[in-house]
Amino acid sequence: MSGTLYGLGVGPGDPELVTVKALRVLRGLPVVAYPAPSDGASFARSVVASRLSPAQTEIAIRVPMTRSVAPAQPVYDRAALEIGEHLRAGRDVGVLCQGDPFFYGSFIQLFERLATEFPTKVVPGVSSLTACAAAAGVPLVTRDEILTVLPATLAEAALEKRLKQAEAAAILKLGRHLPKVRRILKRLGLADRATYVEHASLESQKILALEDVDPASAPYFSMVLVRRADRDTR
Amino acid sequence: MSGTLYGLGVGPGDPELVTVKALRVLRGLPVVAYPAPSDGASFARSVVASRLSPAQTEIAIRVPMTRSVAPAQPVYDRAALEIGEHLRAGRDVGVLCQGDPFFYGSFIQLFERLATEFPTKVVPGVSSLTACAAAAGVPLVTRDEILTVLPATLAEAALEKRLKQAEAAAILKLGRHLPKVRRILKRLGLADRATYVEHASLESQKILALEDVDPASAPYFSMVLVRRADRDTR
Repeated sequence: MSGTLYGLGVGPGDPELVTVKALRVLRGLPVVAYPAPSDGASFARSVVASRLSPAQTEIAIRVPMTRSVAPAQPVYDRAALEIGEHLRAGRDVGVLCQGDPFFYGSFIQLFERLATEFPTKVVPGVSSLTACAAAAGVPLVTRDEILTVLPATLAEAALEKRLKQAEAAAILKLGRHLPKVRRILKRLGLADRATYVEHASLESQKILALEDVDPASAPYFSMVLVRRADRDTR
Repeated sequence: MSGTLYGLGVGPGDPELVTVKALRVLRGLPVVAYPAPSDGASFARSVVASRLSPAQTEIAIRVPMTRSVAPAQPVYDRAALEIGEHLRAGRDVGVLCQGDPFFYGSFIQLFERLATEFPTKVVPGVSSLTACAAAAGVPLVTRDEILTVLPATLAEAALEKRLKQAEAAAILKLGRHLPKVRRILKRLGLADRATYVEHASLESQKILALEDVDPASAPYFSMVLVRRADRDTR
């Protein structure tokens, strides 16, 4: 009987924002995998580092951090092969996922390669979306509002078109795209309705008005939340 | 010194999908409030019932379940007054929130009435959004995809316009609006890309193709996830 593949959401970074379920499943796993940069420590692993046991086999999936997506594909192919061998041998494998596995998670790459062959379970986690809103004290959406979640990596025209229509929006994956996002929000008259959140729930957390952000310093894991003032929510 | 108001996300329903932080904060609270129907038990309370102590003062915020929003306003006004008295007396008050407090949470009503006067902290939770995706085994969004979150309570034309543009969508608060949502998705040729999820993470959880849902039976806490096949995510 083959093992089960688990996608384990470990939340935004604060080790206390992990669910009881993720910790319980993690304890029982013989094999634990996680994404990591080419060189250096895995963020997802760091969140639950104190919960790992030396008896657990660890697989670091070293994803090159490039602007293009293509180079990562052979990495996921190889990781899926390695994980598949454990699963075939009957060993459960958990993949640690920052935030939630199915919300822009690299776990989706492994899910698409393995879930047709092996039993797969996903343990949802606190996503960066709700963690940033909580950190900033900014309600995301209420009542019959529509929420639009946009990666800042999109082209300027596409981003602007969607933000123009949006009642409430979260713009993810800022990094070097911050100046573009700021330009668009200024043009739309939404700059003063935008809150910048960096490293939500970590000690390094920063909450700033969009105006006050140094565009050279925005990390990939930062977000802008926008909420129109149009409607009184009461 | 006044007490602190906490919005505590307790997740989608499975008591194991509560975070370590929410449980730790909950233990230390002298006063615990939660939304409840006019008559009957509170869902949010039920998730953490085994963690409550008889020493804690409980406030049930009894919200009438009507189609119109207006009748609830005096309820939140009164609840804010009652909670405000505890805070003013220096007692911390936690409001239990199904899912996440800032993601369509009724906590936003209390936040808007109290956060300007009292220190307020929000503990994010696993939202219904990621819980439904995990339950259904349907990735929400990947790469540079845009996610649109829509309440089914919107007018048919507005819903259709947004769904037409959407790459990936989650349609919440289905209930009696299910036939309308199904009509729209059929017209857009998206019906076979839609997964229905009811009571995610609970024992009563149901995952169905949209075609197979009895429209009379969809509860308010159900969701349809839509993902276009356009792009290969690899």
